Amino acid sequence: MSRYWNPQLNELSPYVPGEQPRGGDLIKLNTNEMPYGPSPRVLEALRGASDETLRLYPDPQSLRLREALASSLDLEPGQVFVGNGSDEVLAHTFRALFQPDAPLLFPDITYSFYPVYAQFFGLTAETVPLGGKFEIELADYRRDNGGIIFPNPNAPTGILVPLDQIEALLRDNPDTVVVIDEAYIDFGGESAVALINDYPNLLVIQTLSKSRALAGLRVGVAFGQADLIEGLERVKNSFNSYPLDRLSEIGATAAVEDREWFQKSCAKIIANREQLRAGLEQLGFDVLPSAANFLFARHRERSAEALYVALRERNIIVRHFEKPRIDEFLRISVGNEAECEALLDALSELIAS
Amino acid sequence: MSRYWNPQLNELSPYVPGEQPRGGDLIKLNTNEMPYGPSPRVLEALRGASDETLRLYPDPQSLRLREALASSLDLEPGQVFVGNGSDEVLAHTFRALFQPDAPLLFPDITYSFYPVYAQFFGLTAETVPLGGKFEIELADYRRDNGGIIFPNPNAPTGILVPLDQIEALLRDNPDTVVVIDEAYIDFGGESAVALINDYPNLLVIQTLSKSRALAGLRVGVAFGQADLIEGLERVKNSFNSYPLDRLSEIGATAAVEDREWFQKSCAKIIANREQLRAGLEQLGFDVLPSAANFLFARHRERSAEALYVALRERNIIVRHFEKPRIDEFLRISVGNEAECEALLDALSELIAS
Repeated sequence: MSRYWNPQLNELSPYVPGEQPRGGDLIKLNTNEMPYGPSPRVLEALRGASDETLRLYPDPQSLRLREALASSLDLEPGQVFVGNGSDEVLAHTFRALFQPDAPLLFPDITYSFYPVYAQFFGLTAETVPLGGKFEIELADYRRDNGGIIFPNPNAPTGILVPLDQIEALLRDNPDTVVVIDEAYIDFGGESAVALINDYPNLLVIQTLSKSRALAGLRVGVAFGQADLIEGLERVKNSFNSYPLDRLSEIGATAAVEDREWFQKSCAKIIANREQLRAGLEQLGFDVLPSAANFLFARHRERSAEALYVALRERNIIVRHFEKPRIDEFLRISVGNEAECEALLDALSELIAS
Repeated sequence: MSRYWNPQLNELSPYVPGEQPRGGDLIKLNTNEMPYGPSPRVLEALRGASDETLRLYPDPQSLRLREALASSLDLEPGQVFVGNGSDEVLAHTFRALFQPDAPLLFPDITYSFYPVYAQFFGLTAETVPLGGKFEIELADYRRDNGGIIFPNPNAPTGILVPLDQIEALLRDNPDTVVVIDEAYIDFGGESAVALINDYPNLLVIQTLSKSRALAGLRVGVAFGQADLIEGLERVKNSFNSYPLDRLSEIGATAAVEDREWFQKSCAKIIANREQLRAGLEQLGFDVLPSAANFLFARHRERSAEALYVALRERNIIVRHFEKPRIDEFLRISVGNEAECEALLDALSELIAS
């Protein structure tokens, strides 16, 4: 606290990101990064662009990247918004597209930045409990609201809502915006981008941090009909005209253009995930059905917190949330083959002891 | 307009950045970029960092960069904040450190993003007229306020306020924050950073876009006592935890560490500026005294708009603001020797004709 702060600051509860350890020989399965690097074409493009033109401002419209994204999805560039990571895109969305006169709806167990944004932008929010198997029950979202947002697949559960259920919600909720946060969609889900031209109330948010292996570059994306995108642009241009630096735009464009690398990387994660799931089940874990690049798993006998701490001592970091209903779960990012094996070996020893 | 927008969006008047033409053989003197590239050490660091670690999130604290900045200025890392360009740092500052119960004060002629931020964050603002010679008169800021902000040197005039006048204002205005926006300080001004340990109400904002020749990398900085910085951190962590990507942090750190390149680049700009000033005066321009990397100049006979258009036809872009009191001025970024000469040649022809 400080007398120089805007008094609203005292009420904020800022987001706490997962640990980003500096150095050390760690197996890092805590923030859902890709174990495989980005496309070699991305690295080549970045090296080529590391030249004296960095003295110049980037294109404030990021048109080249928006064109590449649009053409890869059969959209118009005016249906594409880009920002400094999907967190910034989410922030602008909360400011631009949710109505202040009715509660924003999102799941009680979900990405923990949503309540932070709601508070930051002075929106009232109501959480909607997940079902008994931790699934999002869209029937419960049919009520007065200032907007609806959920990740698909949900985080940290990994559970996917099928596209026909999303379409039914869009049909039943025509007056406010429904935001589908598809950070993890490429690991086994079907994107709602296909519905954009039919539903003016749909905004889809994606990121290059997961399936494109570019968490380090900070590029997030939103897709929707042109007037929703224009709303986001108005907010962006009242906040920061140049959110994407020259290198991020160039690297992201190369990543979008290399579909083969992207598909191969996602396929490897899906294969590793299913192997890891089998291994965890053999060790006595219940594992929620995941369409993401992580698993949410609860051991039938061992405490999640104790396992989390014991793994940390063996230089393996996973994520544990001290929150009601999920404090007996571990969220485990799907690593490469060696990392998954090392994790299973460590857990096997811990559980046997 | 859209029925899906938050109604506040209809009232916004977003910022319009200077033109960033794509391609073409232009002499670009319109957005105050450096004509000389960034330090070769920056480019080398960027190329070296364009590797598979981009799959990992950046350090959300940007500690390496904050340590480099702190050590270069004899501050603590806790007195340093970094963001995605100084525009983002400014946005967070408006949200975090200005009080909503009294008007924010800034000059009537100044960086045109300030009124946009004030409106965006629901602050009342009062503009304080510049003096007859376009100078900021700090005596006029001694009144009830929710905060004070001005660039030093001011934009687009280039005129510098001496540090002793700033110190007197800090002394006379102890209850609200005074923000000195030093985007252009390195081209001949004395930074207020030296006053930080003495004045808890002082925040200094700088950018790597101008004197470090890194507009393309989007890195802005704020310096102040730890509780002001903590206020900015609270806002940042309620908005976007990772504003600086891995490459931006690494490139910016290398730029801060190469003091020799920085000093040589600034010295060249100062020399070019004084030559350009002499040339413009010879052609019949009145030129305001500038401590920045641009000149603000009015021809005694020719209309600024006509000159602007005629230069544009000759592939030279300068900036012209259609605003009261300054619509007879051109703002001309200081280019390299050849660019300054080409501009003077073109103006000489236009004025002779």
